Amino acid sequence: MKAAIFRGGDIVVDAISEPVPAQGQALVKVLACGICGSDLHAAKHAHRMVEVTRRIPGRIAMELDRDVVMGHEFCCEVIDYGAKTEKKLKPGTRVCAMPVMLEADGPKGMGYSNTYVGGYAEQMLLAAPLMLEVPNGLPTEHASLTEPLAVGVHAVEKAMLTGEEAPLVVGCGPVGLSVIAALRLKNIRPIVAADFSPKRRELAVKMGADVVVDPAKEDPYGKLAAGKRVVVFECVGVPGLIQQTMEKTPRDAKIVVVGVCMELDTIEPMFGIVKELNLQFVLGYTPEEFARSLRLLAEGQVEAASLITDKVGLAGVKDAFEALGNPERHTKILVEPWR
Amino acid sequence: MKAAIFRGGDIVVDAISEPVPAQGQALVKVLACGICGSDLHAAKHAHRMVEVTRRIPGRIAMELDRDVVMGHEFCCEVIDYGAKTEKKLKPGTRVCAMPVMLEADGPKGMGYSNTYVGGYAEQMLLAAPLMLEVPNGLPTEHASLTEPLAVGVHAVEKAMLTGEEAPLVVGCGPVGLSVIAALRLKNIRPIVAADFSPKRRELAVKMGADVVVDPAKEDPYGKLAAGKRVVVFECVGVPGLIQQTMEKTPRDAKIVVVGVCMELDTIEPMFGIVKELNLQFVLGYTPEEFARSLRLLAEGQVEAASLITDKVGLAGVKDAFEALGNPERHTKILVEPWR
Repeated sequence: MKAAIFRGGDIVVDAISEPVPAQGQALVKVLACGICGSDLHAAKHAHRMVEVTRRIPGRIAMELDRDVVMGHEFCCEVIDYGAKTEKKLKPGTRVCAMPVMLEADGPKGMGYSNTYVGGYAEQMLLAAPLMLEVPNGLPTEHASLTEPLAVGVHAVEKAMLTGEEAPLVVGCGPVGLSVIAALRLKNIRPIVAADFSPKRRELAVKMGADVVVDPAKEDPYGKLAAGKRVVVFECVGVPGLIQQTMEKTPRDAKIVVVGVCMELDTIEPMFGIVKELNLQFVLGYTPEEFARSLRLLAEGQVEAASLITDKVGLAGVKDAFEALGNPERHTKILVEPWR
Repeated sequence: MKAAIFRGGDIVVDAISEPVPAQGQALVKVLACGICGSDLHAAKHAHRMVEVTRRIPGRIAMELDRDVVMGHEFCCEVIDYGAKTEKKLKPGTRVCAMPVMLEADGPKGMGYSNTYVGGYAEQMLLAAPLMLEVPNGLPTEHASLTEPLAVGVHAVEKAMLTGEEAPLVVGCGPVGLSVIAALRLKNIRPIVAADFSPKRRELAVKMGADVVVDPAKEDPYGKLAAGKRVVVFECVGVPGLIQQTMEKTPRDAKIVVVGVCMELDTIEPMFGIVKELNLQFVLGYTPEEFARSLRLLAEGQVEAASLITDKVGLAGVKDAFEALGNPERHTKILVEPWR
């Protein structure tokens, strides 16, 4: 089968062997798989990602001299199951699943793995018990947004809001937009969102932001509801952003770090100390949040359609990685490996 | 009157004019004032402290070309009141108070101020409404520990513990020891405490630690109760400690940053992200916590006596700043300006 492979620092389309499902696994056809900002980051800073991952107990780092097929935001169609596996969803069923494989010694990630192929391939394996049927009527392309939406839903859950907070979303890429959607669903308002890009601010409004700000022209902190505890969702993930947020945010604020920064970062703890700030780092989602996200999309509660700005085949993945650098043109590009 | 003055980067004893209480203020005689680690830090990194303070809205930085009299852990005796001020506690009464002066536009700190003299002076001014009478029978030297104890009480309050956590106190200086006392009072146990100094570990046990560890020989994280959420109280406050804690601590841990680090610090956000860590920065205490701390000392609920390792007059302040660098010899040195 064909796949868009991360090989030698480049992305190339090549044939690889078809995966064979073991017990507990399903073989699926990838219908659509979104390109995540983390994939761009991993491609650009692969050595750094490996170096950090190696230092975290229990995590398996990619080996960069071996092929990696990325892609962890997928919607698939069931083809077959491994031996001795309950065939709960019949072949032809459209499914979403958390991008983890269940092994005897614990879950293993897919998408940044030498073992498990991600969604930029014609076929892949899924953990059969994690597969969720896509509700009838939900377009495949919207179902593939389940994973990025779950990231936002989880970030808002981890913030443990009472409903009385003044939320600010810094950065309106796919992650920030998901956070906005999740805040709106919880009715934590008014939602202030900041992004340099006019297109991204427009999308922020579509996703539910009440006030959007170009931080080059206005101070987003000046737009926050007075008298409420400020909660900032940092959805950019570049060095310097945590410190910038610590400097700008008022006393007692909570900073939810949703953006994934793999580099070294410099902070001045004194700003955190003097203002008694709380930093909550978040990653991923729970199975319940993942399932809820699929349901929210199916119920039409999230304005999904406007997030998808292009669809490409495997041959288009490399260019799509480049194109996603322009926030005016692109938000989410889906890979359709069957094209 | 005489004071130990921070002047030109040095500490000198010199005569300064006696303070005159305005409305709402009391003139008091300083009976005892503890030397805080922050004072040592401020003396060593004065320019850095000023630079950071200037960048925090609402904070007034010291001017280093003018005199500063430090000292914010004091027990005093009422001498007189300003005009039109309710004389709630009669002259001769021993009092403790939060080290802030109440002004029309908000509270102003004392101890790092060009305006208000701190406790390394024969006399000082206090905000009359903040004065708390030292209960009969509580020795002055123990009463002067109210402020540092309140720091620990506050840190434990801000951690918002349920009682089911596994606490680790990193660094058993006066702040760490206060945290241990506060944890013990809340019965959050077993308390694991880590310090390189045998003397400090001995004190940690006296203050209520259940397990003490020399981190040069053993991993304190290996001593934590299994199956509970880990809460680390970082009570050292030097660059690198936050990152070290983020690397070592298990998933979902809370890190309470109690140590005051005024320098730039480097973190790798990825460790926070992957483990979904929570960082709570803390500073100071509430009036209620301050009053509670004085009460706890008066009730004999905190093993205060063993913390005090020396008492000096104003002439001894400079040497005491030096001597406090040796954790084997000293924990808390009290200044008795009347000597």
